[in-house]
Amino acid sequence: MDTKKDTNSKTSEEFRKELIAFVQQKGFVWGPSPEIYGGISGFYTYAPLGKLLKNNIEHVIKRVFQKNNFWEVECPTVMQKEVWEASGHLGGFSDPIIACTKCKATFRADNLIEEFFPDTNTGNMDEKALADFISKNNIKCPSCKSTLADEVKRHNLMMKTTIGLDIEAYNRPETATTTYLPFLRYVDFFRKKLPFGVFQIGKAYRNEISPRQYMLRMREFTQAEAQLMIFKDDKNNYDSFELIKNEKMPLWTAKTQEDEKSDITKITVEQAFNKGHFKNKAYASSVYLAYNLFREMGIPSEKIRMRQHMSDEKAFYADDAWDVEIELNSFGWTEVCGVHDRTDYDLTQHGKHSGKDLVAQTPDNKKEIPHVIEIAFGVDRPLFALLDIFYDKKEKDQGKTMFKVPYHMAPIKAAVYPLMKKEGMPQLAKEVYDNLSEDFVCVYDESGAIGRRYLRSAEQGTPFSITIDFDSITNKDCTIRDRDSEKQARIKISELNSTIKNLLKNKLSFDDLNIIEK
Amino acid sequence: MDTKKDTNSKTSEEFRKELIAFVQQKGFVWGPSPEIYGGISGFYTYAPLGKLLKNNIEHVIKRVFQKNNFWEVECPTVMQKEVWEASGHLGGFSDPIIACTKCKATFRADNLIEEFFPDTNTGNMDEKALADFISKNNIKCPSCKSTLADEVKRHNLMMKTTIGLDIEAYNRPETATTTYLPFLRYVDFFRKKLPFGVFQIGKAYRNEISPRQYMLRMREFTQAEAQLMIFKDDKNNYDSFELIKNEKMPLWTAKTQEDEKSDITKITVEQAFNKGHFKNKAYASSVYLAYNLFREMGIPSEKIRMRQHMSDEKAFYADDAWDVEIELNSFGWTEVCGVHDRTDYDLTQHGKHSGKDLVAQTPDNKKEIPHVIEIAFGVDRPLFALLDIFYDKKEKDQGKTMFKVPYHMAPIKAAVYPLMKKEGMPQLAKEVYDNLSEDFVCVYDESGAIGRRYLRSAEQGTPFSITIDFDSITNKDCTIRDRDSEKQARIKISELNSTIKNLLKNKLSFDDLNIIEK
Repeated sequence: MDTKKDTNSKTSEEFRKELIAFVQQKGFVWGPSPEIYGGISGFYTYAPLGKLLKNNIEHVIKRVFQKNNFWEVECPTVMQKEVWEASGHLGGFSDPIIACTKCKATFRADNLIEEFFPDTNTGNMDEKALADFISKNNIKCPSCKSTLADEVKRHNLMMKTTIGLDIEAYNRPETATTTYLPFLRYVDFFRKKLPFGVFQIGKAYRNEISPRQYMLRMREFTQAEAQLMIFKDDKNNYDSFELIKNEKMPLWTAKTQEDEKSDITKITVEQAFNKGHFKNKAYASSVYLAYNLFREMGIPSEKIRMRQHMSDEKAFYADDAWDVEIELNSFGWTEVCGVHDRTDYDLTQHGKHSGKDLVAQTPDNKKEIPHVIEIAFGVDRPLFALLDIFYDKKEKDQGKTMFKVPYHMAPIKAAVYPLMKKEGMPQLAKEVYDNLSEDFVCVYDESGAIGRRYLRSAEQGTPFSITIDFDSITNKDCTIRDRDSEKQARIKISELNSTIKNLLKNKLSFDDLNIIEK
Repeated sequence: MDTKKDTNSKTSEEFRKELIAFVQQKGFVWGPSPEIYGGISGFYTYAPLGKLLKNNIEHVIKRVFQKNNFWEVECPTVMQKEVWEASGHLGGFSDPIIACTKCKATFRADNLIEEFFPDTNTGNMDEKALADFISKNNIKCPSCKSTLADEVKRHNLMMKTTIGLDIEAYNRPETATTTYLPFLRYVDFFRKKLPFGVFQIGKAYRNEISPRQYMLRMREFTQAEAQLMIFKDDKNNYDSFELIKNEKMPLWTAKTQEDEKSDITKITVEQAFNKGHFKNKAYASSVYLAYNLFREMGIPSEKIRMRQHMSDEKAFYADDAWDVEIELNSFGWTEVCGVHDRTDYDLTQHGKHSGKDLVAQTPDNKKEIPHVIEIAFGVDRPLFALLDIFYDKKEKDQGKTMFKVPYHMAPIKAAVYPLMKKEGMPQLAKEVYDNLSEDFVCVYDESGAIGRRYLRSAEQGTPFSITIDFDSITNKDCTIRDRDSEKQARIKISELNSTIKNLLKNKLSFDDLNIIEK
């Protein structure tokens, strides 16, 4: 039942270091940022390859949500105090911290205890209990070994700021709250027809005291959060359920977890619904949507499981709660997404605090606050998962590192090389590059031996390498090399764009091309 | 020479109101946000149609920069004090403000003076001069008519926050500074070859005291900023110049402005360079790139002019400075983009403050701080410009409002309608919709008379409306209606996706289709 198994073993720690070095050196992610000023933990920079990868992930998110009839919106990232009082973040969104009496360093009290006493469950301890435990067990400051304070304080995780001269405001800790506020506008926009869906992809901030775990725990991150707004009585009258009810999902139910077993049940959405794993069809469909989303991003099915929240870990407003978990080489099974039935909690709260009636009219003309089912995740986690899962280092004597990301997610789709810097090859290669750039993100590279250039491409995850050689000049053709099979084929330059397009869409297999000797 | 002519006339004020009402009601932009809590000026929400439009704009920006060999990065939006001390924002990025002695309302002193004395140039007045002018001319508080304070203070425009317990930090006021900091990482990534280009699209914040002018002056906005890093001696040895030197641009030179003339010179980039309007070829190419970018976003050429900064308005670090201006119906000629030769100013500053040598190696092995040429603009402005320019209201008796945005920029590309809700039409229409959704953002709409649905589409700017009627069921075809010509054609359903694709790319004209009677 250990969700984090092996993450502290030598192997996964070594792998982590190696992976992070690769990610930094090859230009995926840099940081902690800003590096030249020392860097502040929890802040990272997407370098050129990482940013292209992130664009591809966000593109998949938008496409999948749009096809499922969710509409994207973009709300402010800074909002005034009143909003966060209503959402509960100002009161409840905090960590317990304790300071060193001597060096003044600050630590999360719960993390500190779990570090020294791994079997202790701090989940139900309040501030006093945490302070008492630390004092009784004589836990010292990890930095200077002095005595820790006898008091644990709450540290709110929001970044406070000011609008104008004196309006107290906060950088948002999630997108959801900001998405709910224009509710009455949505009702108009969707011409009073429910259910409707909206989603937002954007920055959120969480001012942790001492964030660790690399990109899994960032102070500034990108959230993607979809909200389905539906009347309570319509939750079992939800069309999309019919379309996906026969699809299978790997489920780790609360019951299995309570029995301390790690068995995964692979059953259809409908079977799971009939067994009572999901309380309603709209929620079941949302869990499947989340599962499918991560597969569309290129995460292999066998690395995904859906974990039900146990009764004691569900948020107080959540009627039903499942997570998507991905198995990482560096951190073990890791939560990457939550699907929550938030009921009418948020709209009720904001209705009360704003004094506006956040209701819509049901088909039988009653005014009702709809329910909200939410799919929420950080974009940075599936991105890190792709790096973690598809980073592939061969033994040293082979000297080869590859990023074997699924082709459709690759940051760069094709690299174009002139075999040599003479006899018109660079000119023709640049023409080919310009042409390909109309349809794909490409690179042109003329420096170094051709083998060296292939290696560079493979490290960047680029599926196809195009070489312009002597024969290309007269025959108007080129070689195309497949990243994973390392096979090469000869094709007409005029057919290059459509061939790559079809290869990326799996409408064509590389073996269908005119394969030449390696 | 009036850059804001007619903006205060009755007509443009009425137009502004009408436009903003349209933009809000039809679901492009909502706000000031959060509306249910009263709304704070300078904060807006992109509603579903506005967000799709913004996505299209950002897509063009990315495509154009990528094709010009700029690489996208994403840096943190929150950075510590040291960064903003180095950049000069902590010292210099502020507005002069004055408070009312009675009602305590606060105003920008320079704006106040220009409101009451439109011919006064406040550009060179310091705080004391502003306060003296207000006192001598007896300017009263616009809110309560009481006496204003006798002191003008500086109000820094950055939003201050805290990282961890006590690290002083700020929400960034631009992306540029954050883009410069990984300079040494770029040098590695680009394998020590200059010039190279990087760009960033992301949130920036400007805490104005009392922002007006709707979306042109926002407290939270999206910046797009590209940085070309080039050795000083290479600025006239810049390949791209050769590719674009024969393209024409509409220039409003500093000289013409000094002569108080509004003549626009339409000459080629090369002619402009030879006349000395641009100091070097890399800069000239960047100005053209900016001009071209706004045309690719769908802004009509005749609504764009390039305005050179006069010597007294150039930023102190800028060696060469031109703006892109767009003529808006609601606000007259409006600055939407700046192209600045920032020389080695920024990298020198950050080198000094961070203690790192921000240098690269020149071809003759000298270590040198490269120069930076920047193209910087807010994404929200061209978005507003598209709404402003292409909003089209017919006379009242025609009852028709359209958003005549260029087809490639339209938020929704096609709307699919069953003629009636019976005899298999909705089923087939939904199939068509699902199929089109694989390639485009589409809507399905079965409610209301068909004419009403056409109007709805036109208001949303949707180029093509597809109707499934009785004959569609047997013939597997449909009608497609063109937004602007209102012509209709009959085509096979199997050819719908490729036809729309070709129409959007101008590879096919609507008149080439099988036109039927209107």
